[in-house]
Amino acid sequence: MKILEDKILAHGRVLPGHVLKVDSFLNHQIDVKLLKAMADELYKEFEGAGVNKILTVEASGIAIATMVADRFDCPLVFAKKHKTSNVVGDVYSVPVHSYTHNRDYNIIVSKNFLTKEDKVLIIDDFLANGCALRGLINLVEQAGGEVKGCGIAIEKGFQEGGASLRKDGYKVCSLAIVENMTDNSLTFRK
Amino acid sequence: MKILEDKILAHGRVLPGHVLKVDSFLNHQIDVKLLKAMADELYKEFEGAGVNKILTVEASGIAIATMVADRFDCPLVFAKKHKTSNVVGDVYSVPVHSYTHNRDYNIIVSKNFLTKEDKVLIIDDFLANGCALRGLINLVEQAGGEVKGCGIAIEKGFQEGGASLRKDGYKVCSLAIVENMTDNSLTFRK
Repeated sequence: MKILEDKILAHGRVLPGHVLKVDSFLNHQIDVKLLKAMADELYKEFEGAGVNKILTVEASGIAIATMVADRFDCPLVFAKKHKTSNVVGDVYSVPVHSYTHNRDYNIIVSKNFLTKEDKVLIIDDFLANGCALRGLINLVEQAGGEVKGCGIAIEKGFQEGGASLRKDGYKVCSLAIVENMTDNSLTFRK
Repeated sequence: MKILEDKILAHGRVLPGHVLKVDSFLNHQIDVKLLKAMADELYKEFEGAGVNKILTVEASGIAIATMVADRFDCPLVFAKKHKTSNVVGDVYSVPVHSYTHNRDYNIIVSKNFLTKEDKVLIIDDFLANGCALRGLINLVEQAGGEVKGCGIAIEKGFQEGGASLRKDGYKVCSLAIVENMTDNSLTFRK
């Protein structure tokens, strides 16, 4: 998606450890107009798939997921992060490892809000190793629902998450796929 | 706002300790159509005030703030929560006490995303004692920006936050103000 790629080239910053900072327009300050264009694009990719629920995980997936849910005219559910494994109540829960913060946590969703009737489009801002997406997919499958696909803003194509999910048969649509990234260059997969 | 009040009466649940659960439509599963109607209402209240930035705090304020930012056609910034007081980097930071979780944390915003040019509308899902809003106001004022007001989904009118902020001269617009709440009744301020 050209306008997202242009925005990344103009305003993204590469930090040591393959960190791509896009906090001026995607996950701290948010360019809502860009978000809407991204939601339109994801709608085109998944319309007709029968999506009736959008799922993301707090916090930085929520803004784009809100716009996507608006486009699909369906509810949005965001999974919550729990620091402890001591999760109580009527929830689906799955452990996820965060490489960014180098720790484990659980993501949870109330059993009231994911069911076997749900045809779910999973939305997130980043896809790298795929741990968060695998966790969200697991929650949908625990509930007996169906994953219709994953819509991502930025995929790090040089990490294995996207390829592995596609190999497993999931439809993953990433609006920008970073092929290669160094301190002074960044290229996208065409 | 009648449709929000009706939704609270139909789907809200009162739990011990004056907890109002609205997680089926506002802060876990989200009714995006309701959110849009709420954003329209807040736009009516604050249009003409020169708002050029929307500020909220992660996580449950983000969805409604996204819709409000869309309505105002301006950027959204969400403050991040830090568990430790050991905040580094070029950020504005302020300690906030959470009565819900009975702990202190810092909320932070990068200095790049709040400036003295900003005329800020602060958005959150709940207003009770006002600690979170006071923190967000403090961040705007640290940056030399101007707080144009606060737009809230649900205010607990029986707690002191809203009254105290209004007494200090802030325009606070809450779309539903719960006057009184017990296990089997809930009344709104008219």
